Amino acid sequence: MTWTRREVAKLGALGFAACAVPSLAAQTTGPQTGYAIIGLGRIAAIFMAGVRNSSNSKVTALVSGHRDKALRIAADYGVPESSIYSYEEFDSIASNKSVDAVYVALPNGMHAEYTIRAAKAGKHVLCEKPMANNVAECEAMIAACKSAGVKLMIAYRCHLEPTNLRAIELIRSGAIGQVQAIESGYGFNISPTDWRLQKKMAGGGPLVDVGIYALNATRYLTGEEPVSFTAIASVIDHDGRFKEVEENVSWTTRFPSGIVAACNTTYGGQFTSFYRVHGSKGSIEASPAFDYDRLHLTGAYFGNGFNHIDEPNPARNPYQFQAEAEYFSNCVQNGIEPKTPGEEGLRDMRYIAEIYRAAGVAV
Amino acid sequence: MTWTRREVAKLGALGFAACAVPSLAAQTTGPQTGYAIIGLGRIAAIFMAGVRNSSNSKVTALVSGHRDKALRIAADYGVPESSIYSYEEFDSIASNKSVDAVYVALPNGMHAEYTIRAAKAGKHVLCEKPMANNVAECEAMIAACKSAGVKLMIAYRCHLEPTNLRAIELIRSGAIGQVQAIESGYGFNISPTDWRLQKKMAGGGPLVDVGIYALNATRYLTGEEPVSFTAIASVIDHDGRFKEVEENVSWTTRFPSGIVAACNTTYGGQFTSFYRVHGSKGSIEASPAFDYDRLHLTGAYFGNGFNHIDEPNPARNPYQFQAEAEYFSNCVQNGIEPKTPGEEGLRDMRYIAEIYRAAGVAV
Repeated sequence: MTWTRREVAKLGALGFAACAVPSLAAQTTGPQTGYAIIGLGRIAAIFMAGVRNSSNSKVTALVSGHRDKALRIAADYGVPESSIYSYEEFDSIASNKSVDAVYVALPNGMHAEYTIRAAKAGKHVLCEKPMANNVAECEAMIAACKSAGVKLMIAYRCHLEPTNLRAIELIRSGAIGQVQAIESGYGFNISPTDWRLQKKMAGGGPLVDVGIYALNATRYLTGEEPVSFTAIASVIDHDGRFKEVEENVSWTTRFPSGIVAACNTTYGGQFTSFYRVHGSKGSIEASPAFDYDRLHLTGAYFGNGFNHIDEPNPARNPYQFQAEAEYFSNCVQNGIEPKTPGEEGLRDMRYIAEIYRAAGVAV
Repeated sequence: MTWTRREVAKLGALGFAACAVPSLAAQTTGPQTGYAIIGLGRIAAIFMAGVRNSSNSKVTALVSGHRDKALRIAADYGVPESSIYSYEEFDSIASNKSVDAVYVALPNGMHAEYTIRAAKAGKHVLCEKPMANNVAECEAMIAACKSAGVKLMIAYRCHLEPTNLRAIELIRSGAIGQVQAIESGYGFNISPTDWRLQKKMAGGGPLVDVGIYALNATRYLTGEEPVSFTAIASVIDHDGRFKEVEENVSWTTRFPSGIVAACNTTYGGQFTSFYRVHGSKGSIEASPAFDYDRLHLTGAYFGNGFNHIDEPNPARNPYQFQAEAEYFSNCVQNGIEPKTPGEEGLRDMRYIAEIYRAAGVAV
């Protein structure tokens, strides 16, 4: 299935952000939002590649504890050496006019500090999910950005992703009828050296890192906010990895309409991200649903006959990060409130706290 | 993917029942177990077609409240008119030497009565799932069959089904490593005239009827017995269908090893039966998993490289019912205790009661 410009436009008309139509060449004729990249790990590299493909964004500064690495990346992206900052000297970025916004790609436990410092430096903030380690940090981040008059967006890339938007469109259009039940999940078998295993850095286990995709999906697919959760958590592998965070979480969610959801997340098992949505007239499945690319929507529904859905998404990484950069830059340039502001990240953090509480996991 | 006799034999060697290899023509040279079919609804028709394909079973009596329907079916299956019974005269089946066993295909609320009456008539019992309406009925059925010295098997057809046996084999062989998390579910959008909506007839809603497949699958896939459940239930459609039973249930299960499961069932949504099993080295998915045919197993795992699984099951309905008849007849003929005896049905009934209790549904 090929996404035509017309289909993309139709999705945009539904009230969602414009989707990622890969720019064959970056256009530099219009306004360009300059980003300081805070943290130069794997996801930052993908985001920068997305920025490079974008028409309205550029990398203008780097913040890192590793100057050699920063110098190499700076050369690649044409960032002047004077725009490389250590964490200690970060606040001086306030005077760097080439920087309009920051992309916070640090371990979760550092999101609050750098979002707040960026806001105080007068920079707009695009912050990776999970928003922070806890509800109090999220509230402080929102307050700081509000006080500084800068925009805050949490990088929920699926809200801008065509396969996910198509699933939402099918549901909202009534194609599959009244939604009744959803299953969703995401996970992976984590390396023992991953920073995500340290609670201070991560705030929690797979639930905050990848389970959050399933949690957030049940919300955007239903368009409803959860009213209650039940949950269990476990550790199977006593191999030293899970001293601080859980290995597995299963939870159920009840929505106001009565829609129910059953979800899983794991740091111990191989897992293709997915959701399945069951409506009175049909059902759809996205698998993978939350990966960086190769997303695939299938399903079937009754209505003017029996309709099959089989829509592989041809877009390839870093299309989601390009879309994210283009979307947030457009928000910054045109004074638009992002679709996934700090309040969206805060909501998930509150729900995550409820799930942990239901599972008896200390938070 | 074609199931060869060798693969089938390998599965048999794992301790599971011999699988259904369709008999091109029914062989009547060996011993034949004669079945009285109690209840002549949809599933009974499929079971009888399976019996017709089998090598060791035959339909020898019919029990029905509709004599015209029974006469038509009797003509089709060569059942003499003298072997057609009304429910009132059922007990006289004791003296019918052509009947070795009964197949109980009645609404759930009648399973206990007819299993006990069949046992008292000296007939072995193959009873559809769910075993009965509640734990007490299950216990009475087991006691009656034990007391009468007849075999009691609950018709959990997936325990004899090659795609499900293959999933179990992959897990037990360690191919996907340590299992961590499972998702599973089954459901359908029920007709307002279905007897399953009457609690006295059904014992419960989708959980007892189709959710039981997911519950049972999490047990045979893990080889473990649940230690705890959490659950929620809901009714969305206030259209008169759900006055007595629930519409949706989501539940989580925790197993002794720490494996977690998240499951769904619905009477309001279209649903392809499925399970996904996530292990440390790989994951597998069966979808459909519990349907009558066209089952399909996919997945991937690490081990001597990266291994893809894509195994559509070519067998067609009524292969599962043929296997079930052949298996139970073999148990009867050779004094073998069935793999899914009354105790297996009782266990699920206890777990179902726990799930309903967790969901706050009166049972």
